Amino acid sequence: MPTFTHRIYNFNAGPAMLPTEVMEEAKDEFLNFRGTGMSVMEMSHRDKYFQSILDESISDLRELLNLPSRYAVVYFPGGATLQFSAIPFNYLQSGDSADFAVTGVWAKKAFEEAKKFYPNVKSIFNGIDSKYMELPTITDTSVNDGAKYVYITSNNTIYGTRYKTFPKLKKAPLIADMTSELLSRNLPIEDFSVLFAGAQKNIGPSGLTVVIYDKEKIPDVSHPIPNLMNFSLMEKNGSLYNTPPTYSIYIAGLVYKYLKRNGGISAMEEINERKAKKLYDALDASSLFYAPVPETFRSAMNVVFRSNKDSLDPKFLSMAEEQGFAGLKGYREVGGFRASIYNAMPEEGVDALISFIKEFERTHG
Amino acid sequence: MPTFTHRIYNFNAGPAMLPTEVMEEAKDEFLNFRGTGMSVMEMSHRDKYFQSILDESISDLRELLNLPSRYAVVYFPGGATLQFSAIPFNYLQSGDSADFAVTGVWAKKAFEEAKKFYPNVKSIFNGIDSKYMELPTITDTSVNDGAKYVYITSNNTIYGTRYKTFPKLKKAPLIADMTSELLSRNLPIEDFSVLFAGAQKNIGPSGLTVVIYDKEKIPDVSHPIPNLMNFSLMEKNGSLYNTPPTYSIYIAGLVYKYLKRNGGISAMEEINERKAKKLYDALDASSLFYAPVPETFRSAMNVVFRSNKDSLDPKFLSMAEEQGFAGLKGYREVGGFRASIYNAMPEEGVDALISFIKEFERTHG
Repeated sequence: MPTFTHRIYNFNAGPAMLPTEVMEEAKDEFLNFRGTGMSVMEMSHRDKYFQSILDESISDLRELLNLPSRYAVVYFPGGATLQFSAIPFNYLQSGDSADFAVTGVWAKKAFEEAKKFYPNVKSIFNGIDSKYMELPTITDTSVNDGAKYVYITSNNTIYGTRYKTFPKLKKAPLIADMTSELLSRNLPIEDFSVLFAGAQKNIGPSGLTVVIYDKEKIPDVSHPIPNLMNFSLMEKNGSLYNTPPTYSIYIAGLVYKYLKRNGGISAMEEINERKAKKLYDALDASSLFYAPVPETFRSAMNVVFRSNKDSLDPKFLSMAEEQGFAGLKGYREVGGFRASIYNAMPEEGVDALISFIKEFERTHG
Repeated sequence: MPTFTHRIYNFNAGPAMLPTEVMEEAKDEFLNFRGTGMSVMEMSHRDKYFQSILDESISDLRELLNLPSRYAVVYFPGGATLQFSAIPFNYLQSGDSADFAVTGVWAKKAFEEAKKFYPNVKSIFNGIDSKYMELPTITDTSVNDGAKYVYITSNNTIYGTRYKTFPKLKKAPLIADMTSELLSRNLPIEDFSVLFAGAQKNIGPSGLTVVIYDKEKIPDVSHPIPNLMNFSLMEKNGSLYNTPPTYSIYIAGLVYKYLKRNGGISAMEEINERKAKKLYDALDASSLFYAPVPETFRSAMNVVFRSNKDSLDPKFLSMAEEQGFAGLKGYREVGGFRASIYNAMPEEGVDALISFIKEFERTHG
């Protein structure tokens, strides 16, 4: 196994690369946070130091997203998977239905979890027919009568697809799992009733989820909700109903400040689009590699690609690993390769990967 | 606010002090874990590096607890609060009952959460009559007919009480929230059907929970369970059903190795009993301060104490803070003081606190 004395280009899909600048800052104050004599990891979640870390992180996030005041920002533990259960518990009553666009593994899991408790929920799109390489166009006419919400996965990490533009619905509120793209592009926030994201792509360490929801559109349900899934309870308690993942919140806060220093989401979006375009262009120009997803559905975060000679795949991956390009293996059910190029992947990382791909093609193609 | 260039004695109840040795090790490899070129925080939970961190951590924990093979060890996100919902979902069917010993805030929350979904659960002890300063003696005769389990909180962080010996039951399985004492004392593991602990006291960062359960005693329930609460599902997936709080698992693993290097749980127990005895002895000998909990129920982890002159309390706390004794304020509903002296609090920290208490008494008593 190669050994590196420097930080490498890490294309992991998540947990993923974090900005080196943020990691260095966290390292500097790892044992002693700003003269408190303790690590953030060792602080009570009830004390003034942590409270200000939490408050600042939420106000920075609000600023980055330009969030209207009717939207609540709540930190949950447990990743997107907990929200797969929490959303139906908060938004549906017994007998209710909702519409799901099943565009990949995570959307399917969310749909199946909702269906366990609310058997009337419906799939309005099944991506399996296109091997999940296409996304639906969802309009009010796609929405079933009585659907309490429409659920989408905005970017599908595994298949490398995303909605270039988001559905604009009047018939039902829109709920989106944005785990792999929140903070990477500008969003028409007011078109969403709920959006949430596991932190481990563009936000911070795994084990933390950001949930943003429109307080005016959350229903009063009459059944019990497990406390750690209860949006209103968590919101009223300022994300401190129980001990939250404090260190993850701290790192997320450092990431928000890093984004603010670097031009915010618009600047990130510009760089991200450029990074993705370069990489897709190189793949489109290659005679050995190709990107299977149709142009209009291509993700800017997760670039899925394959080679024409499967037999070369292990060689490509082992050479990449040796040269410091980690995490390029595609998801197990998909095969091939995937380069996840979130906010923290510098443009030079993408340039270096393109050179490596070209060189591999020259010597092995 | 005081500023320290060194690490202080941090008596926070949780998140709490971690061993400095562990923190230094984590800091050293914060940006580049053992030549991988990335932080543990940036690693895929599916790759070989993290898998070996996870596997080692579980086998070290098993070794520390001398765990029989029929017990599963599973990492959950979300803290003990998620288990307050998960346990009834996994262990009760509609109409079932279970018995709860309500010995403090956390036991009460667990009881109320269970009651929301299973209205037949019963309280077999209510500590409110003793202001939560006493614990019950639970035997088979205390257990209601048909109770599917008996639930206890083994150490009550807020009130500073613990079960000196644990109930030994034949009539129903015993389930224990051990958040504030797992790894601090030897346990008769086989007397428990489930024991769980939020990590933020003796194990690692907040946001992680260790659940240990007897696989032979988990019932087959017929209702749906939210995936992130489903013991068998999480176990079958080796704690990787979804993206776990990877960095917290890594720190927990370092803590286990630290414990193994330092004589394991028996050695910790000996030191912990000595630390607690010293502090209680000093309080019992004081004319200004006193420990309100009867000797037989006193916790070795959380030493609750008060002064005879309430008016001096703010002075005591501010002087303590200035001199580098953090987190001594009692829980808001209890008042007074609390020194949490988990595994990571060195004996010198307790000695220093005792000197400070004596000096304060001499000058202000």
